[in-house]
Amino acid sequence: MVARTVDLRSDTVTKPTETMRAAMATAEVDDDVLGADPTAFRLESEVAKITGKEAGLFVSSGTMGNLISVLVHCDIRGSEVILGDNSHIHIYENGGISTIGGVHPRPVKNNEDGTMDIDSIEVAIRDPRGELVFPTTKLICLENSHANSGGRCLSAEYTDRVGELAKKHGLKLHIDGARIFNASVALGVPVQRLVQAADSVSVCLSKGLGAPVGSVIVGSKSFITKARRLRKTLGGGMRQVGFICAAAFVALKENVEKLDGDHKKAKELAEGLNQIKGLKVDIAAVETNIALFQQIYVDIVEGSKITAEKLYKNLEEHGVLVMPKGLSRSVFSLKKPPP
Amino acid sequence: MVARTVDLRSDTVTKPTETMRAAMATAEVDDDVLGADPTAFRLESEVAKITGKEAGLFVSSGTMGNLISVLVHCDIRGSEVILGDNSHIHIYENGGISTIGGVHPRPVKNNEDGTMDIDSIEVAIRDPRGELVFPTTKLICLENSHANSGGRCLSAEYTDRVGELAKKHGLKLHIDGARIFNASVALGVPVQRLVQAADSVSVCLSKGLGAPVGSVIVGSKSFITKARRLRKTLGGGMRQVGFICAAAFVALKENVEKLDGDHKKAKELAEGLNQIKGLKVDIAAVETNIALFQQIYVDIVEGSKITAEKLYKNLEEHGVLVMPKGLSRSVFSLKKPPP
Amino acid sequence: MVARTVDLRSDTVTKPTETMRAAMATAEVDDDVLGADPTAFRLESEVAKITGKEAGLFVSSGTMGNLISVLVHCDIRGSEVILGDNSHIHIYENGGISTIGGVHPRPVKNNEDGTMDIDSIEVAIRDPRGELVFPTTKLICLENSHANSGGRCLSAEYTDRVGELAKKHGLKLHIDGARIFNASVALGVPVQRLVQAADSVSVCLSKGLGAPVGSVIVGSKSFITKARRLRKTLGGGMRQVGFICAAAFVALKENVEKLDGDHKKAKELAEGLNQIKGLKVDIAAVETNIALFQQIYVDIVEGSKITAEKLYKNLEEHGVLVMPKGLSRSVFSLKKPPP
Amino acid sequence: MVARTVDLRSDTVTKPTETMRAAMATAEVDDDVLGADPTAFRLESEVAKITGKEAGLFVSSGTMGNLISVLVHCDIRGSEVILGDNSHIHIYENGGISTIGGVHPRPVKNNEDGTMDIDSIEVAIRDPRGELVFPTTKLICLENSHANSGGRCLSAEYTDRVGELAKKHGLKLHIDGARIFNASVALGVPVQRLVQAADSVSVCLSKGLGAPVGSVIVGSKSFITKARRLRKTLGGGMRQVGFICAAAFVALKENVEKLDGDHKKAKELAEGLNQIKGLKVDIAAVETNIALFQQIYVDIVEGSKITAEKLYKNLEEHGVLVMPKGLSRSVFSLKKPPP
Repeated sequence: MVARTVDLRSDTVTKPTETMRAAMATAEVDDDVLGADPTAFRLESEVAKITGKEAGLFVSSGTMGNLISVLVHCDIRGSEVILGDNSHIHIYENGGISTIGGVHPRPVKNNEDGTMDIDSIEVAIRDPRGELVFPTTKLICLENSHANSGGRCLSAEYTDRVGELAKKHGLKLHIDGARIFNASVALGVPVQRLVQAADSVSVCLSKGLGAPVGSVIVGSKSFITKARRLRKTLGGGMRQVGFICAAAFVALKENVEKLDGDHKKAKELAEGLNQIKGLKVDIAAVETNIALFQQIYVDIVEGSKITAEKLYKNLEEHGVLVMPKGLSRSVFSLKKPPP
Repeated sequence: MVARTVDLRSDTVTKPTETMRAAMATAEVDDDVLGADPTAFRLESEVAKITGKEAGLFVSSGTMGNLISVLVHCDIRGSEVILGDNSHIHIYENGGISTIGGVHPRPVKNNEDGTMDIDSIEVAIRDPRGELVFPTTKLICLENSHANSGGRCLSAEYTDRVGELAKKHGLKLHIDGARIFNASVALGVPVQRLVQAADSVSVCLSKGLGAPVGSVIVGSKSFITKARRLRKTLGGGMRQVGFICAAAFVALKENVEKLDGDHKKAKELAEGLNQIKGLKVDIAAVETNIALFQQIYVDIVEGSKITAEKLYKNLEEHGVLVMPKGLSRSVFSLKKPPP
Repeated sequence: MVARTVDLRSDTVTKPTETMRAAMATAEVDDDVLGADPTAFRLESEVAKITGKEAGLFVSSGTMGNLISVLVHCDIRGSEVILGDNSHIHIYENGGISTIGGVHPRPVKNNEDGTMDIDSIEVAIRDPRGELVFPTTKLICLENSHANSGGRCLSAEYTDRVGELAKKHGLKLHIDGARIFNASVALGVPVQRLVQAADSVSVCLSKGLGAPVGSVIVGSKSFITKARRLRKTLGGGMRQVGFICAAAFVALKENVEKLDGDHKKAKELAEGLNQIKGLKVDIAAVETNIALFQQIYVDIVEGSKITAEKLYKNLEEHGVLVMPKGLSRSVFSLKKPPP
Repeated sequence: MVARTVDLRSDTVTKPTETMRAAMATAEVDDDVLGADPTAFRLESEVAKITGKEAGLFVSSGTMGNLISVLVHCDIRGSEVILGDNSHIHIYENGGISTIGGVHPRPVKNNEDGTMDIDSIEVAIRDPRGELVFPTTKLICLENSHANSGGRCLSAEYTDRVGELAKKHGLKLHIDGARIFNASVALGVPVQRLVQAADSVSVCLSKGLGAPVGSVIVGSKSFITKARRLRKTLGGGMRQVGFICAAAFVALKENVEKLDGDHKKAKELAEGLNQIKGLKVDIAAVETNIALFQQIYVDIVEGSKITAEKLYKNLEEHGVLVMPKGLSRSVFSLKKPPP
């Protein structure tokens, strides 16, 4: 019998704290589609301030945050976006930028640390003289921390260099900051500095920070005005949304400082696994809250003759849930233990 | 000085009740994107039951509910949807079915009572033999009650006839039921009966019912499976969404019976306005919670030489907010008075 | 036995003249995708001159001409186009502007003479203040002559008024001039005058003018630059296209003056049909080369108890081909009789 | 002074032969949009026969052929196509499959020989169990010969293996056969064998074969029916298209046997260049009619201190035209020398 479940599937699987519940119960709310909800506004302003951007907009998920950002920057038919071939946008968002937005993606190889070579990015930028046969490059996307590389962090310097390249070619830079606070804590660099070069950032509050729902996208006032309209087009405008913004505000205030603990636990787990015969984990690559199991079970299969499927089943029987490779990654998350 | 504001802009401008807040504070929640939130599931099942459909899916707005429904039914490139030329989908949803979904709309004239003539619908259905030059008709959309006609209701019989026509031509029928409970109460006919012929319904809980956020779309299990995926594409999947579902559940349980009061107030207002010299309201057309001001201020302009703009300004100075014509309509809504 | 077929299905069913064949056989050609075909350039320049616009672009059909024109004017996601609810673009072009271009159509009622009421157009233009829920009106489309109304012509004055309205609201005006030469001849007004107010025109050479293939779209140089790129996107760029441009050039030079003969024959046919008991044709409405049979066979059905289908079959047995209602119209066209 | 221009920019820059002109002058034609042009039908049937497919459809360019093929196979919203990251479709077709078709591309690394590793393709196929966040893989695209790798050929065996993989996963296989005849001649393998595993092929007649205009796509009857409709949507339906089909038929009959000469000239050129100090050409990679200059001028720059731009200018002054890297490649083509 399993006394307690340890759910390592994703940092999205969280339970809200009592403080969050209390904040929701007393939140001041109004119609946010008409732009009148004070709690939404407070959250949006706070995230804008933290990221050093002019304005913010609450959206229901990181996927919506990325989708809206890409579509606002790529508002003209025939736009192309340069992004990592192993990025969340390219791999895990249903191809929405194309299938819903008609934007052409130009994936560039993601290195193991989540970066793309600056040279490779530059080569991928379309020559405007060839516009008869080329889509128009409009945007570069980075992801920090980078989930599919195991939560590795992009430095401020790297991001600046990509930002300079973007400026040089008249492009915009968007950062998928689903876990930007993890990167900030791990690097010891303020979020504002990490996203300094970006024209827009999608910041998720419902992953490591443990908010029940939501992300905030930030950028210039003009960017946010367009984003607000596009949010309405997608049906993402919510009426008295202040309730969930109130909980997200608590997440932002109380949980950033707890991320370091998550990172330590992920490291600890990685080290423990690495001592098991037949397993191998790249310890150095565990920079934040993700410990990639896919680097492990391959060796398990070869060493102990256990298939990956069997491993997952065993773990589940012992109350440990992980995410199979190909669908997602295994992460540590902020969770209230079940009573 | 204005002692109290009377906000008649829209039935979306509501304040949640204490019961709703309490329900949120204690809601059991989990990751709904992974399909595990019990409160979301309870709400979806309840709306499915009320509407007599197999399954339901919570979405963040009526617009998202309609967008997803239309796109699921029109999943193949080259699809066309027949809908009212004065319908909410055609007029107030950013043209999202085309600009995001690539669906071609074929608007048919809305009569003053919100219906479209059955003959006109049939004429608009494309002849499959002409498919070289024609898009493929896939879907008919109705709206009940019909907002732009002043909240008038479609009868079960009318809806059945449209449903039969759809079946005859192998089409689907979607009902924008943003205010289907208003129609049900006004007609004295159960919701299930009103949507019996429909393949999908978008039911809004954040309008007259006063939930802070959200709609539920209902249909067959297969429809909902596809809808769930499309919701993810739009970024409408929300993690611990149970909080807002808990409030919506209260709205569903407690507020349907209050709609009749809204309707009476709208009627009363209409009758009062009609007695003002220079104004004229079509009293018979006030069937639910909407009293169209645009039918009024035209006479004001001509009779009293007051422009519509001046009228709105005067009203606002006296603490009465209404929605200018062209943007939306003026409605009565369930609201907690400000303290 | 049928000695000779009289094909009244469409003015697209033509046979090229010997002059056209000769022009093709000797045409000077080069790679037009690289912008080097002199014969294409000559044709484009000629049509630009006739229409009084800066530049032209050869395209393979009227449908492509309209599609490219609408998409160039509506280049930003969220665009809406106002067009006739009985226009060729809305009815007979596969809904391509939405299903391929993501443009939202806002159809306005076509009067019997092919016009739309100026007031109705103005009401359909979206209020920019409502842009949170509205698509952005970018374009108005007219069609001259108007096929579905039986080839009736829009006057220069009417077109000017629509053009003024467009300018007042910052919109563009496109004219589907598939049969603009028919309108010009029937009205006795130069083409240039008829399209004076338009930002772009799609001129068809393969209908009444009898060219084997092609249309030319005209507009400003900047419009044509964008159109050229979009033509490449659609795959409409053709290499040594000068051959078909050479034939089209002949059509333009030799056949405009023959259109009047087509119009007279259509009138004659209409008058003859009108004398048959049980038939009724609106003679006054036959302004150009189209005589609408659908206004006839209804009366046949009622008067002589012959169904429309039977009528078509009888006609075919006697060597007369017409186009059934709903698919297209019946027209007179320039044809070389079969040997 | 330049006595004669040697144009090595692209095999699309051709001059039609006298036989082609004669065929055009006497071609039997009719309205192909109505499906009645006998010459178009003859060409389509011939290409279908050569490729061993059920039916064919004439289109105005290779780009249109690929666009239509991809869109027919990816007819459902949310489709993804696996294709080479250096393929013509991904690099040189304006991103049309996304910007016009809303299809999400999943590029896989092209090896130097134009293949993609079978394993890499399989990894890129989406797991249907992850469909909540994944687009649906529908199609794999190959390109034979592969232009950007310098015209290298895919073997029948390689193509078969990709075809088996596609079948195993329920996917379709499309071959961009812009230069499939070059591959066939170089490999000494019939076209039919090379495309045996494919569900559709786009065959270009206006490149090495020297037809003035056009490609033919081939596949099952059902594929072609859908393709015909989509061609109409794009505006690619052409009326008396038989003229250009007649020339293309001549190209098909007379010029396949001349391709071997092109290949020899390309080889000869490559060998000559390789002897110039400072230049280096991968002779083995010159399999067909393309000799990549971009592998050369880098060395020129380093060795002789001449920039690529200067080189092109020098060549142009001596009457030799080549295509700068990034836009296209330099090729040998079938050309009638200027008089």
